[in-house]
Amino acid sequence: MHAHRIHHVAYVVADLDVAIAHFVARYGIHVEVREVMTEQAVEAAALGVGPGQIELIQPLDPDGPIARFLASRGEGFHHVAYEVDDLEAALDELRDAGEELIDQVPRRGLGGHMIAFVHPRSGLGVLTELVQRENAGHAG
Amino acid sequence: MHAHRIHHVAYVVADLDVAIAHFVARYGIHVEVREVMTEQAVEAAALGVGPGQIELIQPLDPDGPIARFLASRGEGFHHVAYEVDDLEAALDELRDAGEELIDQVPRRGLGGHMIAFVHPRSGLGVLTELVQRENAGHAG
Repeated sequence: MHAHRIHHVAYVVADLDVAIAHFVARYGIHVEVREVMTEQAVEAAALGVGPGQIELIQPLDPDGPIARFLASRGEGFHHVAYEVDDLEAALDELRDAGEELIDQVPRRGLGGHMIAFVHPRSGLGVLTELVQRENAGHAG
Repeated sequence: MHAHRIHHVAYVVADLDVAIAHFVARYGIHVEVREVMTEQAVEAAALGVGPGQIELIQPLDPDGPIARFLASRGEGFHHVAYEVDDLEAALDELRDAGEELIDQVPRRGLGGHMIAFVHPRSGLGVLTELVQRENAGHAG
């Protein structure tokens, strides 16, 4: 696998609008995608920062994992995402190397990209997402 | 201020060589800078991932803040850094807006860039570094 770039850094936030306003006012960056993700019970936004993004995640379900994260740790860093060309091949490589995957197969993430999460135990303590951009495919 | 891009994501690690080997083997990326930073009592390495970097920080002083971080939380995410054109102007803006700065003035960071840290209380719970690249200057 070759990680091409930091695709995004994700924060869990209590209030998506307040968090967006923070980045707009202080960092001069803007929302590129905003979406309610029903399966994860979150509303998320991605703000463009050069070729990468800051992803902000607000829990919608008070009993969901993101709400529990927020309740126990407060607002803060949630995960980092690296872009790869071929996500399925990357997952195969990691699995063959004995790494611990959260998603065994790619699934749809914010903005329509295919994504998969790697457990923090296989990410030097950091929840790690791998992203294959829409239309990247095997030739990417 | 305008944040141009994610400059790096930093991890605290127990063993720099092991952490580097992890990223080389799993992510196909390589060390661009490696440096003992005496003032911070750490050894740090930056691995290139596209235009950005992964920064790995190993404590050298068992009583220093990074060693305490490692002892209490284990390996994991430490901070994110965003690149700005004019770091002094960015710090002035944040200060004027009532944000909490850790570094009131720019100082030298890994690789010779000028950097300053913003407190997590002013970063949605995330320790945030601002970076002005060497030679970027006011015209950057």
